[in-house]
Amino acid sequence: MRQFLIVGHDAPTTPDFSLDDLAGAAGRLDVLCRCVNSAFFLSHSIREDVRVHLVLGDEFTVRFEGSELRRLNPDERSTAALVRQALEHREDAIGHMPAESTPGVSIRRMGFEETLDAVADGTTLLTLHEDGDPIVDVEPPADPLFVLSDHHDFSAAERSLLDARADERVRVGPEVLHADHTITVAHNFLDTEGFTAY
Amino acid sequence: MRQFLIVGHDAPTTPDFSLDDLAGAAGRLDVLCRCVNSAFFLSHSIREDVRVHLVLGDEFTVRFEGSELRRLNPDERSTAALVRQALEHREDAIGHMPAESTPGVSIRRMGFEETLDAVADGTTLLTLHEDGDPIVDVEPPADPLFVLSDHHDFSAAERSLLDARADERVRVGPEVLHADHTITVAHNFLDTEGFTAY
Repeated sequence: MRQFLIVGHDAPTTPDFSLDDLAGAAGRLDVLCRCVNSAFFLSHSIREDVRVHLVLGDEFTVRFEGSELRRLNPDERSTAALVRQALEHREDAIGHMPAESTPGVSIRRMGFEETLDAVADGTTLLTLHEDGDPIVDVEPPADPLFVLSDHHDFSAAERSLLDARADERVRVGPEVLHADHTITVAHNFLDTEGFTAY
Repeated sequence: MRQFLIVGHDAPTTPDFSLDDLAGAAGRLDVLCRCVNSAFFLSHSIREDVRVHLVLGDEFTVRFEGSELRRLNPDERSTAALVRQALEHREDAIGHMPAESTPGVSIRRMGFEETLDAVADGTTLLTLHEDGDPIVDVEPPADPLFVLSDHHDFSAAERSLLDARADERVRVGPEVLHADHTITVAHNFLDTEGFTAY
């Protein structure tokens, strides 16, 4: 399974935000919505073997489970609405127990480190870094976990945690890309690797 | 220069659409907005050597000029607002003369074939096709023009026109991707090609 964990530093932790200002008042939730789009959508289907974890303000994590998603659309607004619905169920997320808000979408009362602890087991953890190895030089892992940040860099604490945990530190090219574009390139690398005759 | 021409079959040709329903009443304008995002945005800058042509309903073409863009933001809604502003100037686009609506954004009274005629000169025209050659096997052109369709396939007429004009028929991987993801992969291919030591 391919997993993507994206840290939303300014993302909302309550559902009282407008879908009309995702890039402003909603703390750049548009970035996280595009990451969900890039992680799941193929031209004519959804990647079922993908799981996405959106860390919201280090308080909650919203999980998207590819094999269970039913109402995901490509546009930012409708994905933001799913995140808002998840936040409406935040009081039902007690301890580390998830609360499902819509099919395949659930919320957990977990910040970045707790989520990383919970999902990293059994995965190959890849972090993106300007000085990382070219991803094309890396042996494609069976169960990669890509950890990305939103429009901000990782904080010093997040970075040191990742440096301690990362199995691979990679870069996807000579240019530094937005998180959602990085996810698209990572998928393409994993799709094509070993398919030289595709 | 890298150019991307995206055909919006259901896209609006008048400015009387709501920014609140881009994926519905606005004819999947969200798809075209994500294509603009993928074509121009790097993590910390805009790709200035890029030009995007959005064909709207085979009536108008809105051009985004990377070197002149001033007000482009990554979210779908604000990009749709720029398209709507361009459509507000559609009456100023007389004959084939462009009308600039905001810095780097202009509208022309040209459909798909006219736009293709106008921009293909001196470019290497690449079309995306499931049976195309893997893009990694293609010599990266100096001035590629990628022609893509929105959420619909090309019409028979568009396809035959492209088959007659295309210099290369390529695919970006074993999976068929959305147009905006295809643009991201194409950029990454052009960015990394020849940069094995990036």
